[in-house]
Amino acid sequence: MDFNIIRIARVVMNVTDLDRSRAFYVDALGFVETERDEDHLYLRGLEEHVHHSLVLKKSEKPGIQAMAYKVMEEQHLDQLYTFFKDKGMRPKWMDQGCQRGIGRTLRVQDPSGLPLEFFAEMEGVERMLQRYDLYRGARIQRIDHVNCMVQDVEAAQSFYMNELGFRCSEYTATEDDRVWAAWLHRKPTVHDHAFMNGVGPRLHHVGFSLSDPMSVIHCCDVLAAKGYAHAIERGPGRHGLSNAFFLYLRDPDGNRIELYTGDYLTSDPDFKPIRWDLNDPRRATFWGHAAPDSWFNEASVVLDVHTGEELPTSEPVLQQRKPDFVT
Amino acid sequence: MDFNIIRIARVVMNVTDLDRSRAFYVDALGFVETERDEDHLYLRGLEEHVHHSLVLKKSEKPGIQAMAYKVMEEQHLDQLYTFFKDKGMRPKWMDQGCQRGIGRTLRVQDPSGLPLEFFAEMEGVERMLQRYDLYRGARIQRIDHVNCMVQDVEAAQSFYMNELGFRCSEYTATEDDRVWAAWLHRKPTVHDHAFMNGVGPRLHHVGFSLSDPMSVIHCCDVLAAKGYAHAIERGPGRHGLSNAFFLYLRDPDGNRIELYTGDYLTSDPDFKPIRWDLNDPRRATFWGHAAPDSWFNEASVVLDVHTGEELPTSEPVLQQRKPDFVT
Amino acid sequence: MDFNIIRIARVVMNVTDLDRSRAFYVDALGFVETERDEDHLYLRGLEEHVHHSLVLKKSEKPGIQAMAYKVMEEQHLDQLYTFFKDKGMRPKWMDQGCQRGIGRTLRVQDPSGLPLEFFAEMEGVERMLQRYDLYRGARIQRIDHVNCMVQDVEAAQSFYMNELGFRCSEYTATEDDRVWAAWLHRKPTVHDHAFMNGVGPRLHHVGFSLSDPMSVIHCCDVLAAKGYAHAIERGPGRHGLSNAFFLYLRDPDGNRIELYTGDYLTSDPDFKPIRWDLNDPRRATFWGHAAPDSWFNEASVVLDVHTGEELPTSEPVLQQRKPDFVT
Amino acid sequence: MDFNIIRIARVVMNVTDLDRSRAFYVDALGFVETERDEDHLYLRGLEEHVHHSLVLKKSEKPGIQAMAYKVMEEQHLDQLYTFFKDKGMRPKWMDQGCQRGIGRTLRVQDPSGLPLEFFAEMEGVERMLQRYDLYRGARIQRIDHVNCMVQDVEAAQSFYMNELGFRCSEYTATEDDRVWAAWLHRKPTVHDHAFMNGVGPRLHHVGFSLSDPMSVIHCCDVLAAKGYAHAIERGPGRHGLSNAFFLYLRDPDGNRIELYTGDYLTSDPDFKPIRWDLNDPRRATFWGHAAPDSWFNEASVVLDVHTGEELPTSEPVLQQRKPDFVT
Repeated sequence: MDFNIIRIARVVMNVTDLDRSRAFYVDALGFVETERDEDHLYLRGLEEHVHHSLVLKKSEKPGIQAMAYKVMEEQHLDQLYTFFKDKGMRPKWMDQGCQRGIGRTLRVQDPSGLPLEFFAEMEGVERMLQRYDLYRGARIQRIDHVNCMVQDVEAAQSFYMNELGFRCSEYTATEDDRVWAAWLHRKPTVHDHAFMNGVGPRLHHVGFSLSDPMSVIHCCDVLAAKGYAHAIERGPGRHGLSNAFFLYLRDPDGNRIELYTGDYLTSDPDFKPIRWDLNDPRRATFWGHAAPDSWFNEASVVLDVHTGEELPTSEPVLQQRKPDFVT
Repeated sequence: MDFNIIRIARVVMNVTDLDRSRAFYVDALGFVETERDEDHLYLRGLEEHVHHSLVLKKSEKPGIQAMAYKVMEEQHLDQLYTFFKDKGMRPKWMDQGCQRGIGRTLRVQDPSGLPLEFFAEMEGVERMLQRYDLYRGARIQRIDHVNCMVQDVEAAQSFYMNELGFRCSEYTATEDDRVWAAWLHRKPTVHDHAFMNGVGPRLHHVGFSLSDPMSVIHCCDVLAAKGYAHAIERGPGRHGLSNAFFLYLRDPDGNRIELYTGDYLTSDPDFKPIRWDLNDPRRATFWGHAAPDSWFNEASVVLDVHTGEELPTSEPVLQQRKPDFVT
Repeated sequence: MDFNIIRIARVVMNVTDLDRSRAFYVDALGFVETERDEDHLYLRGLEEHVHHSLVLKKSEKPGIQAMAYKVMEEQHLDQLYTFFKDKGMRPKWMDQGCQRGIGRTLRVQDPSGLPLEFFAEMEGVERMLQRYDLYRGARIQRIDHVNCMVQDVEAAQSFYMNELGFRCSEYTATEDDRVWAAWLHRKPTVHDHAFMNGVGPRLHHVGFSLSDPMSVIHCCDVLAAKGYAHAIERGPGRHGLSNAFFLYLRDPDGNRIELYTGDYLTSDPDFKPIRWDLNDPRRATFWGHAAPDSWFNEASVVLDVHTGEELPTSEPVLQQRKPDFVT
Repeated sequence: MDFNIIRIARVVMNVTDLDRSRAFYVDALGFVETERDEDHLYLRGLEEHVHHSLVLKKSEKPGIQAMAYKVMEEQHLDQLYTFFKDKGMRPKWMDQGCQRGIGRTLRVQDPSGLPLEFFAEMEGVERMLQRYDLYRGARIQRIDHVNCMVQDVEAAQSFYMNELGFRCSEYTATEDDRVWAAWLHRKPTVHDHAFMNGVGPRLHHVGFSLSDPMSVIHCCDVLAAKGYAHAIERGPGRHGLSNAFFLYLRDPDGNRIELYTGDYLTSDPDFKPIRWDLNDPRRATFWGHAAPDSWFNEASVVLDVHTGEELPTSEPVLQQRKPDFVT
């Protein structure tokens, strides 16, 4: 590979009411608002030194416009362009200036249909890491990962690992050894990108990293105090997979956010991917209440990078939609 | 009143297998084992300077033998004896020496049928509060309260407040202003004794106080690591009522234990009891997963203080068995 | 005794600049501001259901006007008046209406010269305990105790225990068994009132209770972010005595505030006061940096309840001013 | 560069009494003991999947044998060998088998005189990350960094950045813009290797990563309970530089260990190194007690990779040995 992908770096997400979203993301969850215009809210975490990691775009319908990776050098974008073009994947340039705070970007629908984006430059801003007086809610530190539902996890995993250079930290297998879910990373954490078997392509959730478990608990308290207790869909609990202490929230449009803390360093090439049986009860929930059905069935639709239209979804190749102990 | 009840001080509980119970209470939850004989396990919390606050007694069948209150002076036991006798309640003395670690006790079935016990003296032991090297699991600090299901909460509340000198911190009322549950205290915390409407008389749970929320989270992790994840019945979450951060566990015999932290001082006579509507979703669960049906339906039977036989239970006077939002 | 003192309930403290104090107490430490007028700032903790527990009064010079105890019934004030009068202590009434938010109060200089105050009624206000969205800084929960430097600790201890009904939880003794410091309580925590040997009478600090250690750490972060790192005089650390996790701060006028969490229940009459040797290094600092000299030498002067003038101070009866391991 | 250094991976340290060291590192701090033989103790953190990250070697005198980096591929060792040889730096092979648990290693004295080691393979072992029942003391997660005192920080920084491919996250400069200290990394955290101006070459401390601040506090409590309170040299506190919540300990031989949690992701090439003035009080101590003189003056001597003899030390090139506000 002649490109070097650093990390998941931003998600661009449609929402239907910017004020309502701002109340949730900024006032309750504690995202830092970098900037707002009539149609966009640019948000970042406290440790982020760049313009944003989450863009909420006002739209009539929800939908995910892009999940973006930062690359090491500007020229890697050109190399990715050639790579995608050679694969017949119809990449699309978005020039610098047409999106706020970011350089030129390359967009492409990945083999699962997910709207990927790549960029090398983003405007720098003041880092708020030590502005503890501004810490609110979940004290969001930074974007950590995206988790996507796709029809064919094995195909997706193969493309990301073999063609884009991702490594696998953990995975879930069915009884007959089919990969049901996979956790892939470029930065040395458990993941930048996870895939799970399901109706796809859809974005299951965006994960944001917190500095400690008490930030999760405090966020729950703040959410309840502000009337958002119903936004808590699952958790707090501990994942077996990744070891993270987690909380899943649904934003006012139904998009799912994970608050995530406590995974581990995956820098070593001799770290062997951890295998979990799909039906091992400790896999997804080391402890905690069982995930509700909504967690397995609902996810955000994604948009076509060329037309902006919602992508149709299809049934997954593996029949089992969720572990057998969740009844 | 010529007696002064200080606080809930111990529970005596039948279990069917002492080794299995020891593995749960001592090895996983971190209770301090004061002493064990063939038929009993005497447990205490880290800050307790007395012999025990929980007695597990080997027996063929589960059941609660006694919930005990400490009184200020030895002579208060005699005054309570007279008081109960005058009420026609058949109190029973257990002489010093017939129970390990404790002076003479007075037992009586309260008007709801609950097996109460009173004592003034318990053997002192070394306090482990600053033996942080021995902290394990939930780092149990001390017994905090009992919560009982009774047929008639208003009658129970009236007896405890008017006859025994308890005060009410919070309560739950139905739409037509019947008291569905009540939190009563002698020590200035939210409760020593709570009553909830249900099939009774039964002990719903014994609550133990922890020093902070991270002890709850760490306990969940330890429970899962030791194969007890299934013992978590409800939580972690925050109660609206009492403000406590909580976790409910079921011991190997099905007895329910609450890990409890974060209530408040109730010392002032002008503190007005807080009223909660039974159907206010924030009442029992300020945030967190809904309580499962088992939490509303299952509880520990209590024993007759004279015969040791299980007390029969009856349906409660208020029809509504649980909030209407728990479906 | 025919009066029943409940707990330490408020401190009235002169400050020289209300805006500067407000920035420190409200914006940085997170006290709830109940009310402010031209000359006073009325502050309370998040769990307090009464008008205030700290009054900052604008004045040309710092000084402590009163340390107030709440009593169980209004008539106890009359009984205390008689008691003090009979002792020749010149108690003084302050009628309802002359102080904001509080009923009539009784003031008296105690035998050490400390300005005590007693009251039975304070205006009720909304409790903010579950307004987690308003939690800031140290998330102050409630007033916990005062600690005073006096010339003769044994005399002070004797008066409070024998005449006012306080109990002793812990104390510090010199090699020749003189009491160097004593922790006394009415509510069943480690203390409402501590005395330490030193130039007196002076108020060493007012302690406020927090719900957990992470609130202390977060407060340090917020203080540093707001430019108040220098206000941290000692800690965070753990006291051997009381077991509390603590932080000592100096307010803009030099008054000392302790953030305090993690003591234990002292309800039982058979709890034996814990003796610590003055020169046991684990006594005051179970772990943590040694207290600086300022901590031993500096304290707030107190005012005469009749004249409002600053009370002169004198050398203590015990020569040793601090432990011998602090060099 | 034709080699890829992944991360700091182990330190080999002489100690004079293995039992005494085991009591400190394993029983008090909670390191996992992988293996012990007559002369070595092999320790690792809870998340580490490899044989060890700290080797304590019994010896008559303290001293640092090696600070080791893991490289991506076995052949990178050969490329490093050539690189060092070409520089005239006399690298030395240690064949597989002559050290327990690790493949062949390459050792070399770096330009500052520090004993560096490189390896590609280490034996895998069971990861204890989810064995929460075994968590003790500080719950050490993994090795994070080394911090070395050297005579000439600018020379050291230049060699590591320009020749070995490290990046700089933060640095400290004097008034006349000389680099007084530098934080360099290969893995995307704040550092693998820091240099500070001082008598060198010496190892100032080894930093181990914890999962949250409460693990630091709990470790202090455990240390005090086990009689190690005196081992706490500095902290807990927050660094301005790195943002870490820290605690510095001295082991029984005087080697310094840092418990470290709360830094941030440094993956992005456009992250600009943060400059701190040496005399900015918030630089080293965002809040917390001032570092004692021992922290600035004492450090562990390092050994010659060829002779095993202690390396002589020299005065640093910059005169200022510590910030001017530490008096």
